[in-house]
Amino acid sequence: MSDVARLAGVSIKTVSRVVNDEPAVHPDTAERVVAAIEQLGFRRNLGARNLRRGSTTGTVGLIVEDVGNPFYSELNRAVERTAAAFGRQVLTGSSDENRDRERELALEFCSRRVDGMLIVPAGMQHGYLVPEMRAGTPVVFIDRPAGDIVADTVLVDNLGGTVEAVTHLASFGHRRIAFLADSPNIFTAGERLRGFREGCARAGIPFDERLVVMRTPTEQNVGEAVRRLLDGPDAATAVVAGNNRATVHLLRALAHAEGPRPAVVGFDDFELADLLDPPVTVIAHDVGALGESAAELLFARLQGDQSTPRKVVLPVRLVARGSGEVRPSA
Amino acid sequence: MSDVARLAGVSIKTVSRVVNDEPAVHPDTAERVVAAIEQLGFRRNLGARNLRRGSTTGTVGLIVEDVGNPFYSELNRAVERTAAAFGRQVLTGSSDENRDRERELALEFCSRRVDGMLIVPAGMQHGYLVPEMRAGTPVVFIDRPAGDIVADTVLVDNLGGTVEAVTHLASFGHRRIAFLADSPNIFTAGERLRGFREGCARAGIPFDERLVVMRTPTEQNVGEAVRRLLDGPDAATAVVAGNNRATVHLLRALAHAEGPRPAVVGFDDFELADLLDPPVTVIAHDVGALGESAAELLFARLQGDQSTPRKVVLPVRLVARGSGEVRPSA
Repeated sequence: MSDVARLAGVSIKTVSRVVNDEPAVHPDTAERVVAAIEQLGFRRNLGARNLRRGSTTGTVGLIVEDVGNPFYSELNRAVERTAAAFGRQVLTGSSDENRDRERELALEFCSRRVDGMLIVPAGMQHGYLVPEMRAGTPVVFIDRPAGDIVADTVLVDNLGGTVEAVTHLASFGHRRIAFLADSPNIFTAGERLRGFREGCARAGIPFDERLVVMRTPTEQNVGEAVRRLLDGPDAATAVVAGNNRATVHLLRALAHAEGPRPAVVGFDDFELADLLDPPVTVIAHDVGALGESAAELLFARLQGDQSTPRKVVLPVRLVARGSGEVRPSA
Repeated sequence: MSDVARLAGVSIKTVSRVVNDEPAVHPDTAERVVAAIEQLGFRRNLGARNLRRGSTTGTVGLIVEDVGNPFYSELNRAVERTAAAFGRQVLTGSSDENRDRERELALEFCSRRVDGMLIVPAGMQHGYLVPEMRAGTPVVFIDRPAGDIVADTVLVDNLGGTVEAVTHLASFGHRRIAFLADSPNIFTAGERLRGFREGCARAGIPFDERLVVMRTPTEQNVGEAVRRLLDGPDAATAVVAGNNRATVHLLRALAHAEGPRPAVVGFDDFELADLLDPPVTVIAHDVGALGESAAELLFARLQGDQSTPRKVVLPVRLVARGSGEVRPSA
């Protein structure tokens, strides 16, 4: 420690203060002490740097629903790419749509002193983040906004995309259009429901809540919903699937279903959608751009951007491949 | 710092030694100092704990080729699940099959003092890890072995699986079987080539190197290879695809190709394989088990297992769905 003090030209007491993260050390002095520690062979020990107020651990945290879901793994990749450009690595965690797990992960990331966090929120209460944000850890919300705090957010045009899906199906003559989505507690599912209603209204189709199923899109839940939606004289002739999981399970259920096949438009593009029979029409958006935009917002904050929180909404587009361009078979 | 010294019942000099990670402090004493630091409100500052020799940062590092590739994202998820059971979080990084990037990521993880590392190696030289491993950071290799060091490794039965693929196709009468895989520098691709040769030998099919294409399976590379392999009087009547990327690009190329469609068996299962037309026969293995086994080996090491390094080989199985159960059309 005396070597460090000598090299930095400060007292041992000052070195202790810096190492112990005590206040009342001028930032320039702290910088000099840390440089001396590093020069003396502690270079690899970032722990020492962590202790300096305002220093960096070189990591950012990313919380998604499930790192194994292709949508989130593509997002992860984009965040990683942007983080690497800023010399940061990424700690990831899956919340499994559980808000307690989200909170636990976020606080654990903070305890590991991440420089900032990117969160696809599972819950709607984010007051727990306020102390961390005030202490200088920026947070950017991805794909869904924060519940009760104001923060940087990057979304996709959920409402506009679902309006477009319904309008597209209606243009082929469909009037019995079902909506199969995740739990309405999830922001994107709720917004897409709003888009679905808006799309029906614009097409002059009366909204029929019996054609709306909003549950966690597991294979079983979707299978049950499909059997019911396609049954009877009032069966749906078209389905809008609310996300990539709902679409995949819908397609699997339809492969085993009897009777006429409904038209399908899925929200979110996915690999092999073009190779299925029929190829799947989707509302596509750029997941890479979603991750990059969010990470760029975060790094702007880390570089001192103090402007008011921003909300970015990325565009979506309908990719017509076949499954959505069929007339009602009844 | 004097508060810490008083609470721990040691000298300020001792506290400095612990905080600076200097030797010559008895582990029990170090433990007491760290406990005192935590009790005095530094609980959330794991950086302080990092500084104690032998302490934990609560993170493990995972290096894969590409976190966005579904194979690796499923692996990531399994590692995360096991790590969570041991109270650890996961730092991830993509090497992009670049050994310099792998090394850079691994050393950065070490500089962030991960408790251990799980690596799908891009390179074959791992001497750079020896100092870290000697210093107590266990490393487990996943899906491919280390190049020039002895370390815990979890693999799948690459050779056996590819033998089975060839045997299966030969049983339907195929004699012109192509092998489409990644660069032979990649361990799994090399092992699968060995399995391909072995399978041909067992089936009494002369090995024809013109039917073997081993290049990074990008859409373009695979497209070019397919056009060549399916052309002329000696065209292949069946293709073994060496991994999930090769299979997906092969299927896309076949969708746009003219002439008779070859039989296909792919190594690695993938989502929607069962819904394609024809459904895709694959050599499946349990990616979740691969990640869990590797993480369990790592945590056994972290809990003091000092036994000799282990090599675990997980079984594979052929899942017949249709694309591999067709006779040659010529």
